[in-house]
Amino acid sequence: MPAPAPSPLVTQFALSLPGWAADELPELLARVFATVEERVALTIALGRQNFERDTGGPFGAAVFESDTGRLVSIGVNRVVPMGCSTAHAEIMALGLAQQVVGTHDLGGVGQPQRQLVVNWCPCAMCCGAVVWSGVRSLVIAGSGPELEQTTGFDEGPIHPDWAGELTRRGIHVTDGILRAESCQMFRDFARSGRTVYNARRGRP
Amino acid sequence: MPAPAPSPLVTQFALSLPGWAADELPELLARVFATVEERVALTIALGRQNFERDTGGPFGAAVFESDTGRLVSIGVNRVVPMGCSTAHAEIMALGLAQQVVGTHDLGGVGQPQRQLVVNWCPCAMCCGAVVWSGVRSLVIAGSGPELEQTTGFDEGPIHPDWAGELTRRGIHVTDGILRAESCQMFRDFARSGRTVYNARRGRP
Repeated sequence: MPAPAPSPLVTQFALSLPGWAADELPELLARVFATVEERVALTIALGRQNFERDTGGPFGAAVFESDTGRLVSIGVNRVVPMGCSTAHAEIMALGLAQQVVGTHDLGGVGQPQRQLVVNWCPCAMCCGAVVWSGVRSLVIAGSGPELEQTTGFDEGPIHPDWAGELTRRGIHVTDGILRAESCQMFRDFARSGRTVYNARRGRP
Repeated sequence: MPAPAPSPLVTQFALSLPGWAADELPELLARVFATVEERVALTIALGRQNFERDTGGPFGAAVFESDTGRLVSIGVNRVVPMGCSTAHAEIMALGLAQQVVGTHDLGGVGQPQRQLVVNWCPCAMCCGAVVWSGVRSLVIAGSGPELEQTTGFDEGPIHPDWAGELTRRGIHVTDGILRAESCQMFRDFARSGRTVYNARRGRP
């Protein structure tokens, strides 16, 4: 039997925003998002557009300068289109923000405080990613069982006291901004019949 | 006062292996790694080379076909060189494996079972990433406080029962392969005086 061919030589991978989001970015970067409601509303709108345009799951995220309300980056879920299970909205927004800022630490000395905003509680992976990113605060539309119950998406093995764990690491958590609006968007996603892409849908 | 210039327009980011690892990859892909010891030894060697060559932190990972021992991808920590806090060895190896396989789910129907091997327990973020990747098993050199005590690296808000959480999701966990060798490598890293890059070194 001949030896099987070795795996192809892949030494890098790239993650990108969908075209519509890249097109909207210049206008968004010129705006000021003064309130947390405006910031969460952006992430809900991003999540909605992302599933309606079939460019990924119903999740949106953004990094802001906390005090000025200036947008640094946006992210949407890109798991299926990019063929990359880590391409969650938070990973996209944080990775793009770090390219903008030019360092892996969004909270380094002398930098403005930065904030990650998401249209729902980050999953286990993204909760860890928040800690390593250097952001000083996390603002989310909501947390709790509604997302998993409505859509079938799984939050994964998230720490039972994830908010306390973040807080103890100096990351301020604000939960429950535009919660009803976000839940409505997830219901609309569920009604649309689109794919829930968890590996094996979370089954062993 | 003139309005500040908006953030630059960044719509994608790429993560790549260092040159030495890309150069070694063809030879590694042609080998068969029959035992878990051979697989873990590879990740320890990758972690060691990565810090000694100043191309990232002392962490290595690899994805294998569980049964054949064929290598699918390798990863090393690239946080500082790539300016990306999520560029942990596991995220690199999983992302590259998914590019090789052509899908976000390394455990899809009809595919060979795949295994992630790492030179220490994944951090909170990477533990979540393991779940979403589709791998069927995780093999690690060790877990416990030694890594944090020796190097100052932080595991983050990892679930207290992370191994049980993975097992319940159908991911078999093997802990303690070449543990002493891995700890020795981390001690060598600590003695080298190189940077521990956690955002604000884990301090609030």
